[in-house]
Amino acid sequence: MHKVVIRMTIQIKVWDRPVLKEPILICGLPGSGYVAKIALDFLVSELKSIPLATIYSYSFPPQVLIRPDGSAELSKHEISYVRGQNGDLLLYTGDAQPINPQAEYELSNKVLDFAAEFGVKRVFTLAAYITGQFVKSPRVFGTATNQDLLRLLVQNGALVMSEGTITGMNGLIIGLAALKGMEGACLLGETSGYVMDPKASHAVLSLLKKVIKLDIDLTPLEERAKQGEVLRSILESMKKATETQSEKDLGYIS
Amino acid sequence: MHKVVIRMTIQIKVWDRPVLKEPILICGLPGSGYVAKIALDFLVSELKSIPLATIYSYSFPPQVLIRPDGSAELSKHEISYVRGQNGDLLLYTGDAQPINPQAEYELSNKVLDFAAEFGVKRVFTLAAYITGQFVKSPRVFGTATNQDLLRLLVQNGALVMSEGTITGMNGLIIGLAALKGMEGACLLGETSGYVMDPKASHAVLSLLKKVIKLDIDLTPLEERAKQGEVLRSILESMKKATETQSEKDLGYIS
Amino acid sequence: MHKVVIRMTIQIKVWDRPVLKEPILICGLPGSGYVAKIALDFLVSELKSIPLATIYSYSFPPQVLIRPDGSAELSKHEISYVRGQNGDLLLYTGDAQPINPQAEYELSNKVLDFAAEFGVKRVFTLAAYITGQFVKSPRVFGTATNQDLLRLLVQNGALVMSEGTITGMNGLIIGLAALKGMEGACLLGETSGYVMDPKASHAVLSLLKKVIKLDIDLTPLEERAKQGEVLRSILESMKKATETQSEKDLGYIS
Amino acid sequence: MHKVVIRMTIQIKVWDRPVLKEPILICGLPGSGYVAKIALDFLVSELKSIPLATIYSYSFPPQVLIRPDGSAELSKHEISYVRGQNGDLLLYTGDAQPINPQAEYELSNKVLDFAAEFGVKRVFTLAAYITGQFVKSPRVFGTATNQDLLRLLVQNGALVMSEGTITGMNGLIIGLAALKGMEGACLLGETSGYVMDPKASHAVLSLLKKVIKLDIDLTPLEERAKQGEVLRSILESMKKATETQSEKDLGYIS
Repeated sequence: MHKVVIRMTIQIKVWDRPVLKEPILICGLPGSGYVAKIALDFLVSELKSIPLATIYSYSFPPQVLIRPDGSAELSKHEISYVRGQNGDLLLYTGDAQPINPQAEYELSNKVLDFAAEFGVKRVFTLAAYITGQFVKSPRVFGTATNQDLLRLLVQNGALVMSEGTITGMNGLIIGLAALKGMEGACLLGETSGYVMDPKASHAVLSLLKKVIKLDIDLTPLEERAKQGEVLRSILESMKKATETQSEKDLGYIS
Repeated sequence: MHKVVIRMTIQIKVWDRPVLKEPILICGLPGSGYVAKIALDFLVSELKSIPLATIYSYSFPPQVLIRPDGSAELSKHEISYVRGQNGDLLLYTGDAQPINPQAEYELSNKVLDFAAEFGVKRVFTLAAYITGQFVKSPRVFGTATNQDLLRLLVQNGALVMSEGTITGMNGLIIGLAALKGMEGACLLGETSGYVMDPKASHAVLSLLKKVIKLDIDLTPLEERAKQGEVLRSILESMKKATETQSEKDLGYIS
Repeated sequence: MHKVVIRMTIQIKVWDRPVLKEPILICGLPGSGYVAKIALDFLVSELKSIPLATIYSYSFPPQVLIRPDGSAELSKHEISYVRGQNGDLLLYTGDAQPINPQAEYELSNKVLDFAAEFGVKRVFTLAAYITGQFVKSPRVFGTATNQDLLRLLVQNGALVMSEGTITGMNGLIIGLAALKGMEGACLLGETSGYVMDPKASHAVLSLLKKVIKLDIDLTPLEERAKQGEVLRSILESMKKATETQSEKDLGYIS
Repeated sequence: MHKVVIRMTIQIKVWDRPVLKEPILICGLPGSGYVAKIALDFLVSELKSIPLATIYSYSFPPQVLIRPDGSAELSKHEISYVRGQNGDLLLYTGDAQPINPQAEYELSNKVLDFAAEFGVKRVFTLAAYITGQFVKSPRVFGTATNQDLLRLLVQNGALVMSEGTITGMNGLIIGLAALKGMEGACLLGETSGYVMDPKASHAVLSLLKKVIKLDIDLTPLEERAKQGEVLRSILESMKKATETQSEKDLGYIS
């Protein structure tokens, strides 16, 4: 009889072993309003980043995704890299977050260890700051694992929070980074939480761009944000039609 | 004191070690409408396949099933084989899918490794394409892990999807197969999702039969499908009586 | 830094190492109507069984129980033994079933391995057959892992089932016993599922007593059952007062 | 390919290795009314205890907490120590309990093993005794793993329970302590369960102080309790306004 001992596993397929110059890790996994995911997808596409590793995990949703060409593929995460004038970047995003909390810790830990192999010492994650209402100019909030880095965010326009939580890997990654002697910061784009929100992604990237001195044209994302805003105003009209009470800031973050 | 370290286990009892000729693995585990399970049970019974392995897992529902002869037995999965003119087949089905998502990955992975020991390089899974409505002639959708195989499905009448997910082991098995260098394809039979649907199973097998050039008489399953259709029309009448709105295709797959 | 690898554990404290004569294992863990637990507690108390082992598990409910003397204690399971004229007995019961399904498999497996060390080859579990209605004379259903043992149950008055499931450890234990080359049988006492039901426990033990030729006086349990019946008739009156529809046998087992 | 085996882990960062004199471990993790957590935070602050260890676990909520200074940090637990005239103390509290039951066992076990390294033989946990109603003078209930210790609690004013459960680590820790040959006791402060209840914390500490002959001024906590009472009376007025039925003691403990 085969007696099989099963263990929880993460598989990392490594495609390249580049030597990188002071790389910064930028993470954005799917969450509320897809704020972080849209931003990362934009960076990957606009910066033409080079595939570095593909990650599979038994903790991802148990399903295959049908891609636009009709093919089926497991959920996966991807790390890619870009060489830049002001230091290199590692970009990390994926199809879905793990479906159990412990696996969120495990994978965050693993990705940080992997990034450390390339010399990463500073990590940025992007996230959503959910308020339950639509706004014209989304604010960007910032938090960091040390006061120096927090100050840098504030100097570039981020607002400081004094309570709350950032749930999921976009939060855990900076928390775990600190335990490993790395610096971590999270930029949170204000969003209603009701729709995919490229406008919040744009706001977050506009600030990140300044913080890391990244040379990137955000115009294409601005276009998507404008289209999103059309949808937003339609939804808002519908909403106003069905409610009279003013909404309050929920202050909920995810 | 006994201090017992417990591990998650899968047990595979192997009954035979046949040398097989280019075997193809065909999988159909219980899911919506029992489309895949009915199809596999039919193949096993009609092709008189020979038991190859029985699988038990701590991730199966924690219960014994009372069989028709009054005996009690653990939930199990079974792999059997058939020698055919156009290559041999491994058939894989079982009582129930694992009850936690990670175990679905683990077992899919294990079954593929086991099949690889017999030389399997191509894997077909069957599944349900749920629409929420009853149809006279269920469509069959196809997806594959590479474009060549997808084309083969289409040439034999399968419709292509461009989005969605296939949840559970009938999806995972082809996704994991691709990671192991095997080819995987899934055929999904259109079904309401409300009742056991041998008609969808028949539609799927009619297409599969052509794809893998399998010599099998589907008439007995057609009979079951017709009986199913009687039930369907009764249910439909009841449904029409209680609703006036036309239903829309939900496009939900499981 | 302490880095601690944690594993799922079961701890078995063994109090004695008796040499037993063809021992039979009788199991009854808490479930619907406490049918099995009441029966086992009665056997333990009436037969003055001797403690053999205490079992703790991380899969038990995460709590301490306050005992009647005001002390606090972890949930636990206990195995005790009795020497008898017609072979010895191992009795197995406990405070609660594990709270995750996989742990039910693990613990069932462990207890069977432990029992095998004492020479156990035949295992009986007790369970509830839930019907949703109160009855004067609860029926006893039986199932077994082989036809010979099933016949023995029937000869002593058990009714045969032809479908359904027995969920939890009272089912799993006999299913896993069969995989280990032991014989397993389950006796299920008919019960409403609404109240603790010593009457069903009495019915089950009356039949078990004949099957294993056990010399035991069930009168004290009959007394408890009669008290239970008083409660039952009160509840039934209340129920009749609030409903007019006759209830149907739900055929649900747990 | 990196193939990563993941294990459930607890990380304990140890800051100091003091030699302690007959130390007693006092635990209070967040639970109903924050009774235990408020009490421990008060002890830590008032006794100016010295950091001994910080604990991180993959079973903590998957999130970072934003601290009042705007920085982000993982959930954590902390053990600190105080040298006292009547023996030394280890104080144990944290941000949140583990989110899965098995991890509650694992961490309780680990913390007790760690405490044993410093010579701990007696463990006190604090908890809430939920009644669903506001009271002027909360009662304090006690339970212990042996009758001698229970008597000591009663001599100092604790009431004895004869049934019920204490759920979570504040219960498990004393249950597991007993298995390790330590003595364990739990003091439960009566609380409504509706609000943070420093008054219940004060009641519990007043009794604990006598039991362990601890020299501490509880006046600052009494102040907080009074402020809490103002809130309580407002809530009670609101409650009375919306209900006429008298409430009954729910006897629920957590």
